[in-house]
Amino acid sequence: MRTSICERLGIEFPLFAFSHCRDVVAAVTNAGGFGVLGAIAYSPEQLDTELTWIDGQVGGRPYGVDVLVPGKVDASALDRQAHLMDFVPERHRDFVTHLLSKYGVSAPIQPLTAAADEFGRRVTAAGATGLIDVALKHPIGLIASALGPPPPEMVARAREAGVPVAALVGTVEHARRQVAAGADLIVAQGTEAGGHTGDISTMVLVPQVVDAVAPVPVLAAGGIASGRQMAAAMALGAEGVWCGSVWLTTEEAETSPAVKRKFLAASSLDTVRSRSRTGKPARQLKSAWTEEWDSGQESPGPLGMPLQLLVAEGAMARIGAAAEKGEPGAVELVNYFVGQVVGQLDQVRPAREVVYDMISEFGEAVERLRLLTGSD
Amino acid sequence: MRTSICERLGIEFPLFAFSHCRDVVAAVTNAGGFGVLGAIAYSPEQLDTELTWIDGQVGGRPYGVDVLVPGKVDASALDRQAHLMDFVPERHRDFVTHLLSKYGVSAPIQPLTAAADEFGRRVTAAGATGLIDVALKHPIGLIASALGPPPPEMVARAREAGVPVAALVGTVEHARRQVAAGADLIVAQGTEAGGHTGDISTMVLVPQVVDAVAPVPVLAAGGIASGRQMAAAMALGAEGVWCGSVWLTTEEAETSPAVKRKFLAASSLDTVRSRSRTGKPARQLKSAWTEEWDSGQESPGPLGMPLQLLVAEGAMARIGAAAEKGEPGAVELVNYFVGQVVGQLDQVRPAREVVYDMISEFGEAVERLRLLTGSD
Repeated sequence: MRTSICERLGIEFPLFAFSHCRDVVAAVTNAGGFGVLGAIAYSPEQLDTELTWIDGQVGGRPYGVDVLVPGKVDASALDRQAHLMDFVPERHRDFVTHLLSKYGVSAPIQPLTAAADEFGRRVTAAGATGLIDVALKHPIGLIASALGPPPPEMVARAREAGVPVAALVGTVEHARRQVAAGADLIVAQGTEAGGHTGDISTMVLVPQVVDAVAPVPVLAAGGIASGRQMAAAMALGAEGVWCGSVWLTTEEAETSPAVKRKFLAASSLDTVRSRSRTGKPARQLKSAWTEEWDSGQESPGPLGMPLQLLVAEGAMARIGAAAEKGEPGAVELVNYFVGQVVGQLDQVRPAREVVYDMISEFGEAVERLRLLTGSD
Repeated sequence: MRTSICERLGIEFPLFAFSHCRDVVAAVTNAGGFGVLGAIAYSPEQLDTELTWIDGQVGGRPYGVDVLVPGKVDASALDRQAHLMDFVPERHRDFVTHLLSKYGVSAPIQPLTAAADEFGRRVTAAGATGLIDVALKHPIGLIASALGPPPPEMVARAREAGVPVAALVGTVEHARRQVAAGADLIVAQGTEAGGHTGDISTMVLVPQVVDAVAPVPVLAAGGIASGRQMAAAMALGAEGVWCGSVWLTTEEAETSPAVKRKFLAASSLDTVRSRSRTGKPARQLKSAWTEEWDSGQESPGPLGMPLQLLVAEGAMARIGAAAEKGEPGAVELVNYFVGQVVGQLDQVRPAREVVYDMISEFGEAVERLRLLTGSD
């Protein structure tokens, strides 16, 4: 396809696949799209291993890396001398213990201090820097910042390495700020997306962002998991699309079987924007976890980021393991980030097949429009 | 354009304009679109007057009528022997009195009983029947039901008169139910729309509804106020679009000057889905009214429909009049139903010009897609 972003990045089809799973990233890149590895789950050493593996798979085809850099973090949690978990109030720990007990999750509650510190630091500006250093040692084609404007240091290093910087936004104001901060590519993400989102829908947000930041290219995100939706996004003025949820039910996905089953059964009414997993509003599957935190009588209310993320990740690791063993209470609690398109995901397919189906349906949608308007 | 709905209704361009203003309905119909008059604001006699006026303007071109038929109404309020206002609890009346006083709205609080009864009954199934009777005496091309499945009697009468029935839905499940109830045309409305909406965005909802009710034609609603957005909606599989908000800042619109000024200044972040005006979640401009009802310390919480509608309409009539006089507290309170596209509306234009601009931009968007894909 002839969009500016295809030319700039040297790709056939402007379909960006955000995934925490290296197999998805490689499969999409090899199918003519552009895989972007979410680095949040990795330490710098692990990230290096993952990227080395991808390099071996994609034969020089371009792929990217996404780091989560929040604009605002709880400053008290940034003190490197302290343990992050020490900042989690007693009643929040108690509430998690209560939840696990109420739902009969059998796994023991162990102290999480060291792992939590490591994990929590990664979502700070300082922590992200370590990941960026590793990423730029690999032949990546894009580095993305999922939250807040990219730190000046990240932009400077990417520039030096000749790697374009992409930034996710949910408002026109943020898009302008990101471009001012040096973003080369804006991902305008509607409220229907999985993960951290704003209030404005993709249909409304994308044209406004396109007009506000032109000639900077814009990718559309949120509500896109089919070729028709991709064609719609491009009709709005986007140069391509950024998809996350659609990969979560692919064969390659890291999604645990219990969560995958819940995704396949869910309708588009089964997601909620909740602060219960990260401390910021993030769209995810509704589950007993979101219900208990958001409207449970005993809920102390979620903490900010990164503390809520620590609390939730620690608990979810146990819940996920118990759900895999088939414990019914754990199955009620377990969830994951996903957009409203979850209602469209009803079968497990290889990621490559998803790409090819989207390309094919995209072509049909454009052809249908052409015939409707009689421009032949 | 060659969509099935254009052929069925005999229109050039599948752009449906929902408006409470006869001038907008006539202007859009005369420009090649399809105007639909919202009948909720009228008594049967007034509706007859409005439709007679439209008949005189459109020279036989087709237009439609929309009635608000809620699926569920508070049964206790349906007793024709009682005054609807008698069902409004004292503390809700007191809260309105308090609000008007707090914001210095000068208009006196008068009993609303008779007008409220008349107004409230119109949004019941029985009340809607009177409007439907009147509508079917005019040469209308469509009758629409904005809430809940169309009553069997409405479908039967419309069938007899050869008039297609359209129904607005916010979920796939409701779409299936509407088709089973006899709807000839489904309007799939995303959460970003103004007025009563569900949770699912247009981008996600439309393709699912199209697939679920095929071959019944689907119009897309919510987030559509430009030709690019119309092209996106058609790429999703819609046969046309249903727009409401975009007409509210036209020259012809009935929107009061104070509200129009607020709309022109608003961004897409300035709407909220609130139960404070009708008792059901309806997207509208954020204002002191929505803030006070939804999160004010003294708020008793909104009532159901139609009681909250009575309370709100009675108060808003006074607030609107005071806002027109420039009373600052009234300007803070005043609002109206509008979708997230309000952020795009920044000038007052004739409705005809809006239609022509949408047609023109639609063509450009389709042409851009054609060039991107190289299908030339």
